[in-house]
Amino acid sequence: MQPYRHKVQYYETDKMQITHHSNYLRFMEEARTDFLEQIGWGYDEMEQAGISSPVIEVGCRYLKSTTYPDVVEIVVTVAEVTAVKLKLAYRMQVGENLVCTAQSSHCFMENGRPINLKKRLPAFYTLLCSLQQEEEKKTAKN
Amino acid sequence: MQPYRHKVQYYETDKMQITHHSNYLRFMEEARTDFLEQIGWGYDEMEQAGISSPVIEVGCRYLKSTTYPDVVEIVVTVAEVTAVKLKLAYRMQVGENLVCTAQSSHCFMENGRPINLKKRLPAFYTLLCSLQQEEEKKTAKN
Amino acid sequence: MQPYRHKVQYYETDKMQITHHSNYLRFMEEARTDFLEQIGWGYDEMEQAGISSPVIEVGCRYLKSTTYPDVVEIVVTVAEVTAVKLKLAYRMQVGENLVCTAQSSHCFMENGRPINLKKRLPAFYTLLCSLQQEEEKKTAKN
Amino acid sequence: MQPYRHKVQYYETDKMQITHHSNYLRFMEEARTDFLEQIGWGYDEMEQAGISSPVIEVGCRYLKSTTYPDVVEIVVTVAEVTAVKLKLAYRMQVGENLVCTAQSSHCFMENGRPINLKKRLPAFYTLLCSLQQEEEKKTAKN
Repeated sequence: MQPYRHKVQYYETDKMQITHHSNYLRFMEEARTDFLEQIGWGYDEMEQAGISSPVIEVGCRYLKSTTYPDVVEIVVTVAEVTAVKLKLAYRMQVGENLVCTAQSSHCFMENGRPINLKKRLPAFYTLLCSLQQEEEKKTAKN
Repeated sequence: MQPYRHKVQYYETDKMQITHHSNYLRFMEEARTDFLEQIGWGYDEMEQAGISSPVIEVGCRYLKSTTYPDVVEIVVTVAEVTAVKLKLAYRMQVGENLVCTAQSSHCFMENGRPINLKKRLPAFYTLLCSLQQEEEKKTAKN
Repeated sequence: MQPYRHKVQYYETDKMQITHHSNYLRFMEEARTDFLEQIGWGYDEMEQAGISSPVIEVGCRYLKSTTYPDVVEIVVTVAEVTAVKLKLAYRMQVGENLVCTAQSSHCFMENGRPINLKKRLPAFYTLLCSLQQEEEKKTAKN
Repeated sequence: MQPYRHKVQYYETDKMQITHHSNYLRFMEEARTDFLEQIGWGYDEMEQAGISSPVIEVGCRYLKSTTYPDVVEIVVTVAEVTAVKLKLAYRMQVGENLVCTAQSSHCFMENGRPINLKKRLPAFYTLLCSLQQEEEKKTAKN
């Protein structure tokens, strides 16, 4: 997996001369769609399957400020998978500095109704589970 | 007609400590939808009629900077109406100071195709023409 | 205390035809600055005192989607106050529907360093504590 | 000169399911700062020289809509240079399709005052003039 890189833009900064905190949710979306593409379940695949995945919960801890023209490197991992929910974790760094950690939770919808991922997209579900297990092993080692 | 008021938000400012110039297009959209509501052709009416009005051209002159928490007062007028295009003009002030003048041009679409406003929505077309004529008279007097 | 009202704008919606989830952090900022103004500690007072209050943590639960032109009513309450941190809670409704609940945590900075609120701005600190206690009483009653 | 590429993000789309028109001003800013970096006068150089370059005028013609996840390729050229003003032109394409043409005008400020570019930054001024002349020759040939 390649980390996602977002170059902070001038228009993403605010009067405090730092990246406005709301923009990190946008960086997370960029990194998330890139992550899903990398694992073969990008937007096109989902759209063809008629499935959308709205955000149901989000949390961010801002550790250090960033600003234009910093490059934020974002690593996305699978934190939790159930039949109806996917939770992703994000680590954002500028160089060696950890600047933000975050999580987002998603459900999966088809025709306006939540779906059971395990039944409706078993291959995707299995892949997410194995990515989560790999992540757990890594964490256990460290 | 009531001028539209937009309070500049902190998240609309940038590193230069002023309102980022791209946000004025958003203020214009707010003022435009408010203007159309005031003349009885708000978003709901348009949506019910199945009509959208994408922006086809836009121009802004930035005269003075604004910043949080300035209140920008926006006056919208009809600059030009044809069967297929509406051009609106915007004057934005903070107190007595003119901060930005702008224009936007719009076509009208139904089922993905441009429509002839004069034929498809004659009452709206006639109203826009009379608003434009009033504006011309005012300008001629001044 | 008056709840804050934000009318969702067209430019705040996305391809899913709902308000993009990142914008709720912006609504929270609007509601927060309004709340601080209402209790007499608005941006001007803070700026004169040379104090800024960056966001250090944020969390949102999205319960129902909203869209243009919904009016989101936001109630801000003090969830926690310590000498170095303020945590606010947000309840956002469209009419009777609870659409989003959220929290944000803030520290207070002066000349680039975190300050002790209790020592540096005792009147503000005491006010926040009393607001938090009122909130606790209300919650206990319900 | 390398054209600048911006991948349209999900959060840049709106309810009409296309890129919101205000975002093109942000793409222009990205392409402009990239252009200035490529010619050796990036943000760092300017900041060290204590100079900022606010936008004083902007114009966009929207020819075709774009949406997530289109990649917009932006070519920036020097349209006009005077001692006090720089005008850039932008051509934005998705594949073979021209989607937007635009211009932006900028002044240059130091300590809150406009500067004479020819006197204050003669090397930059001369470079911009030569880029404009090259562009004119190209246009004349076509």
